Formats: sequence, structure tokens, C-alpha cells
Amino acid sequence: MAEKINTKVVTGFVELVPEDQIKFNNLKKVIEEQYQVFGFLPIDTPAIERAEVLKANISDETVKQIYQFKRGKKDLALRFDLTVPLARYVADHFNDLNFPFKRYHIGKSYRAEKPQKGRFREFYQADVDVVGVNNLEVDYDLEMLTLVYQTFQKLDVAKFKIRINNRQILSTLIKYLDCGNKEDEILRILDKKEKVGVVEFKKMMLEIGLNNEQVEFLIKFISVRGLDRVVSHLKSFSQIEDDRFKKAIKDFEKLISLIKKLDLDENCFELDLSIARGLNYYTGLVFETNLLDYPEIGSVCSGGRYDNLIATYSSQKMQGFGFSIGLSRLFDQLRELNLLKNNKKTIDLLIISLDSNLDAIEIAKKLREQDLKIDINLSSDNLRKKMKNADKRKVEWVLLVGENEVKNQKYILQNMKTGEKKEVKVGEIREFVK
Amino acid sequence: MAEKINTKVVTGFVELVPEDQIKFNNLKKVIEEQYQVFGFLPIDTPAIERAEVLKANISDETVKQIYQFKRGKKDLALRFDLTVPLARYVADHFNDLNFPFKRYHIGKSYRAEKPQKGRFREFYQADVDVVGVNNLEVDYDLEMLTLVYQTFQKLDVAKFKIRINNRQILSTLIKYLDCGNKEDEILRILDKKEKVGVVEFKKMMLEIGLNNEQVEFLIKFISVRGLDRVVSHLKSFSQIEDDRFKKAIKDFEKLISLIKKLDLDENCFELDLSIARGLNYYTGLVFETNLLDYPEIGSVCSGGRYDNLIATYSSQKMQGFGFSIGLSRLFDQLRELNLLKNNKKTIDLLIISLDSNLDAIEIAKKLREQDLKIDINLSSDNLRKKMKNADKRKVEWVLLVGENEVKNQKYILQNMKTGEKKEVKVGEIREFVK
Repeated sequence: MAEKINTKVVTGFVELVPEDQIKFNNLKKVIEEQYQVFGFLPIDTPAIERAEVLKANISDETVKQIYQFKRGKKDLALRFDLTVPLARYVADHFNDLNFPFKRYHIGKSYRAEKPQKGRFREFYQADVDVVGVNNLEVDYDLEMLTLVYQTFQKLDVAKFKIRINNRQILSTLIKYLDCGNKEDEILRILDKKEKVGVVEFKKMMLEIGLNNEQVEFLIKFISVRGLDRVVSHLKSFSQIEDDRFKKAIKDFEKLISLIKKLDLDENCFELDLSIARGLNYYTGLVFETNLLDYPEIGSVCSGGRYDNLIATYSSQKMQGFGFSIGLSRLFDQLRELNLLKNNKKTIDLLIISLDSNLDAIEIAKKLREQDLKIDINLSSDNLRKKMKNADKRKVEWVLLVGENEVKNQKYILQNMKTGEKKEVKVGEIREFVK
Repeated sequence: MAEKINTKVVTGFVELVPEDQIKFNNLKKVIEEQYQVFGFLPIDTPAIERAEVLKANISDETVKQIYQFKRGKKDLALRFDLTVPLARYVADHFNDLNFPFKRYHIGKSYRAEKPQKGRFREFYQADVDVVGVNNLEVDYDLEMLTLVYQTFQKLDVAKFKIRINNRQILSTLIKYLDCGNKEDEILRILDKKEKVGVVEFKKMMLEIGLNNEQVEFLIKFISVRGLDRVVSHLKSFSQIEDDRFKKAIKDFEKLISLIKKLDLDENCFELDLSIARGLNYYTGLVFETNLLDYPEIGSVCSGGRYDNLIATYSSQKMQGFGFSIGLSRLFDQLRELNLLKNNKKTIDLLIISLDSNLDAIEIAKKLREQDLKIDINLSSDNLRKKMKNADKRKVEWVLLVGENEVKNQKYILQNMKTGEKKEVKVGEIREFVK
């Protein structure tokens, strides 16, 4: 006991004070409600997986970030995302699930990243995926994009834009430019374009062996943004005679129809041919979501179509579309920008017991039966100290319960913001504090 | 890819199919709501702690169960309960918290236990604690017992009994019997009494050096159960002249007054002098909760008063009272006993798109705006196959959306249980399915 124990959380990890935790939980709840409203079902998987499951299909860079350990003879590891566990889950529970399988999963993942602003070693993600057997219509992808839209509408924290592309367009373009064998490298550089700027981007492209003409063509090709504009732009490249290219244009057109039909705000959507997404498992539509007034945050929600991901774990052919909101990161940045609404009270009422604590507990019981969130100060402190404590907690309402009040069955309800006092019966309290 | 990857969860770990996950989430929600109604605030702490924090105050047996690993130079470990993290959290955030600090924490913990029925290596606990600086009135303990009562009333899964004792009574008795130096051993054996039976219990007591007379006295002393009966029983031991003994009797009397005053069901409470609780940090009231018709389950909710626990991490004197519901274990056993109510629908309505998927998505949007949980089948399967799929999912209502329906703005709403069909407008759907 004499030894001093370090009580700080481990570097790179985070925990919140209750007031912030309530805001975090509120953010999480809004997202979860939208996922449910769109018919997604919850799952939860163990944080600990066999190391081989996690390492089956990822880059060396990610492998280094995995928390790995041995237990007995087993090589175990903490999951680094919720997508690999989904793929394993679908493979393992295949016969118990109904397809298309729509699941959401809000949980913690772990990466031993270099500590930096907005990057945590333990972080919540809010993932949502739809997985079909053999084939999944692209209409599911389009519906998923409306879920992104609805979720950010409901969050109502800032103006946002969902920037959409299709990997097939990039892939057919790269093939057309005769750089087919460099597709992975080109996509990786493309994904970094906004971060590094156009000069560095060109340089990187030349370095991997593209010539000037190819790079200029690529830059011109990906520079157009908008909705109908992008479709016209794509149609102007009639020289790219690839069915995948044509199908992708059709899907864009269908998306635009849907946006108009559902009367969604067109300013929230953009086709952006420069979007590549870093992960190599995407095979179709891909997207990112940015908060327009806070471009420095980067994407707050991204995802796309994957047609082969689950094949690592299952012999059954499956196609999926999913996306993820980086909840911990989003929360951290919204909090810093002061964009989180403080509309969640911690408690509805604090009862200050002046004489008999049992009487105060009895009144609390009656109010709690009305689903009010009630705290009681049962300490032996005097009234002044109890009022000071109530003030410090920023509670809005306090109820004073002393011997006289109990005798008369009338209690003093005080608003801590306005100072206003009222004599009330127990039955009258709810309408004031709610 | 050719290599076969084992997709089963690691032995001792568990994951649920969505239908069960919804039931689990429902159980969790009822508990969380009660914790909130009693004015407790949420916190969340990292699953990974410094190993020294976790190992500061626990038995060698528990140390062996900790998942430990090294990362760089750091010895890290996964938390094995939510109480140690609470103690660390309170010490670390002392200046940012309001006291008495009332927090709840529902989260996962990890123990590498031998796999056995109802024991998981990753498990949810639902913890709730109140911590006071210097001193915490016993009235808080009594209020906490009413929270246990309300929570199990709300869960409404089975008849339950909260069995309460006070460590001070056992401690003063052991001192009176002149076995003061064997207190820890006696409590440990006492805690196993129900499991091992009275014969083995006697044998174990004799083995640690008690004589026959002491053991008989102890057995007689702890054999009385009830409420007022136990108080009279205790008062008959006027030879135990210890203030702690007398204070404990007063607290029991106060608890009985509270139960009567709040008109709680007296059958749900019992003073039971044989309750010891295994953990050595308890210093006052301790309790367990049993489901009366399922004694084999053991305690489903237990806790007590601790006056020195936080001292391991802080120089500030603090007293606390807390308890824990073993959520994963409780869920597993209630599910097995078929005691979980299936009152949570997965979704409210499944839309079956027959022709234009965009039309179906538009109708879904309108219904989702009414907070209905809507899934849509957008696949190219025919109607028969889609109906079969709806049946398999056990949805209650389906809505058929085809070209004709869209033209007439009237859709076919079908109840999958009764087979009943209705022609409805979009605005009429909510009242049927809710």
C-alpha cells in the first residue's frame, strides 16, 4: 500500500468524466437508433480473437498494430476493427442467419498506434453491413447511402457531404491508361491525394512509373465533382469501352434518381472520382463523409462494397456493403469544436434530505416510479453545504425534504438556475422537472 | 486463402445470434434504466490497464486468471472486474468528480477461467457504486438495497430474495469466540457453506483449528433467518458487548423500517447471518441475491460496503457501497430456463419490393420517419421466395410494394401469423404494426 501506483490511463487510451460520457452515449444512441430504424440487427463479438483470424487478410503495417498475446498454447489478439469479426461471424453462423444479413455492431477495437490527436488505442466504431449470399443487388448499396444521410441529419452536428465513387471506374480507367499492373499502387497514392497536395501527388505517380501524359489524363479525369455533371463527364469518355465502366455510370444515375425521389438534400451528396479508400477489399461503390466546415477532421464515415472479403473465412460466395463511423474520434473532435448539444440532463431532480433520510427515500421512490432520474443527498452535511454541492453538480432542480415538509406533505422545489421556489405536492413535481 | 481458418470463437468465449442479442440488450437496458432512475451516472474505462493496477490488491488465484501481455516496455492486462477500474478512476479523476460519486458501469471483463457452464472468459457485468469522501452514511447502503429490489422487480423474471448480512457482526462474533486471528479463513469457509454442506463445513472449521464448541456456537448463531426474527436473535446475544455489533443491529432495524415504509415486498428480503461474501474488501453490509425457484444458479447480484478499497490508489479516505449483476451469466441462465420474455421485435415491418426498388425505398423512408424499424427485401427473388424469407425471419408484418400498388397508392399489408391481408395507405400502416 505504501508503494505509489500510477492511476493514469495507459498512454493512447481515454476515459471520460460522467458529463462527457453522457454526451458520448447520446451520440452513440442517435446512431444506433438510425441503424435499427433501417432494420439492422445487433451483434456483439468477443474482443479477443485467434491471431490467425485477424492476420489472415491484412497489411504488415496493421499486423504491427495488433495487440497480440499467448495464453497456454493459443495465439490470441484483440480485434483491430469490426469488419474482420463480421466476416468470421457470418462464416461461423452461416446456417443460423437470414440473408441478406443486416447487422450493426457498436463496440471497441484496439490498435497500438502512435499516440496522436484524435487517434486512440482503444476506440469505438459504429459499423453497419448488409451481406448477401452469392449476390447482393446494388440497390442495397444505394439504400445504405441514404442511411448515412439520415444518420448525419439526425446527429445534426454540422453540414456534411457524402463523397461517392466506384472502384470499377478507377479500375477500368487504370486499365484503359495501360497501367493495369499498378492499380494497387495508384489507388494507394490516390487515397493520399488530399493530404499530400497535387504537386506531391504527381511526383508520387511519376515515381511508380506512370508517364506525364498518363498522370495528366488521370488528374483531369478525377477533377470533376457534382452529381449530374459527373455522369455527363463520364459519358464523354466513350473511348473506355468496358461494361464495368458503363454499369458504374448506370449505378450513379440510379443513385441520383433515388436522391431526387426521396427529396434528400442534394448538397449532401457528391460524386467524386478521386475517392479511392485505402482498404484493398472494396470492389464497387466507395464513399467518405466530410464535415464541410471542418475539412481538417477528414472522413467521419466511410465504407463501400466488398465482394470477396468473406471468402477468406467461408467457401460460400458472399457480397456485402458496409460502413463505419469512427465514434470515439468523431466524439473527440465534435467535443473539441464544441458542436455537441448538451441536451441530456444527468438527473432530473436532486432531493436534499434535511431530517429523516427514510422520508426522503420514500419520496424518491414515488418519483422514480414515474421514471424520473432522482438523486438524493443523504449525507449529514448542513443545508448550505448541500446546496453548494447541488450547484456544483449543475442540477436544474432540487427538492427540500425536512420534517415540516413531510408533516404538511408540501415540499420546496427550487430551480437552481433561476432561484425560483415553489411549494409543491409530490404529484406535481413531474410536470415541473420534465 | 486455400488454408482453412478456424472461425469458431475461442473456447470460453461467447457470441449470440441476433435474436438472442436483442434479448440480451433488452435485459441490459432494463438494468441500465433502473441505475439511471436512481441517479447514477455512466462511466466507461479502458479494458486494458497497467498490470500493476490490477494486481495491487488481489489473491494469487485471481492473478493467474488475468490476461497479461507486454507491449514495448509496458506490462498491460485486461481488467478482470469493474471495481478495480472504479477505484483507479476515482483516485485519478478525484478533482473532477462530485461526491458522493454515484456511477454505473456496464462493460466487459476478462478472466482466463476454466471453461464451465455459465462461466465465460469474456463477460458483461452491470456495476453500480456510490463513493463518499471520508464518510458515507449507511442510509446510502440501504437505498442501494432498494435499487436491487427495484431492478429485479422490473426485470420480472423470477421470484428473488436479497439476503443481507453485516461483516461487522461476523467479525465481532469471531472476536467474541476468541478466533480473531482466523477471521479471513473463517469467512472464506463460511462463504462456501451452501456449496459444501454442513458436514464438510464443520470439518473445514475444525481443520483450521476451531474447537467443537466454537463451531457449534457459530452454526447456531448463523442459523436464524428472517427480518425482525434475526434482530431479536441478535439482541439475545447481550454478552457480545461491542459497539460495532450494536451499530450493525441498529442498521438492520433501520433497513426493516425502510422496507416497511416503502411498502416493499418483505418476502424479497432476508437477514441471513451466514452470508460472508468471498472478497476481502467488504467491511459492513454485504448481500447476495438468489432466484428462489432456481437455487442452483447461485447469487445473481451481490455486493456490499467497502471502506478501504480505494486507499490502494489514493491517499484520500473514501467509503463506498456497490454491487454487481453478472449480466452474461444471468442472461445465459435465464435463456436456458426459458425465462426471458420475447417482447422485443427485431423489426416492425418488412417491405417486399416487387417491381421498382426505388419506390420501395421511398415508402420505407416515410415509415422510418415515424421511427418504425423497417427492412426491405430488394433482391431479385420472386414473390414466393421473398415470402418464404419473411417467414423464416419471423417478422410479424410484411408490406407488398409493386407497380400497381404504387400507382394506386394502396399497398397490401399482411400479418404473417394470421395470414390476414389489408389494403392500406402509407399513413395507415403505423397503427397496425405498432
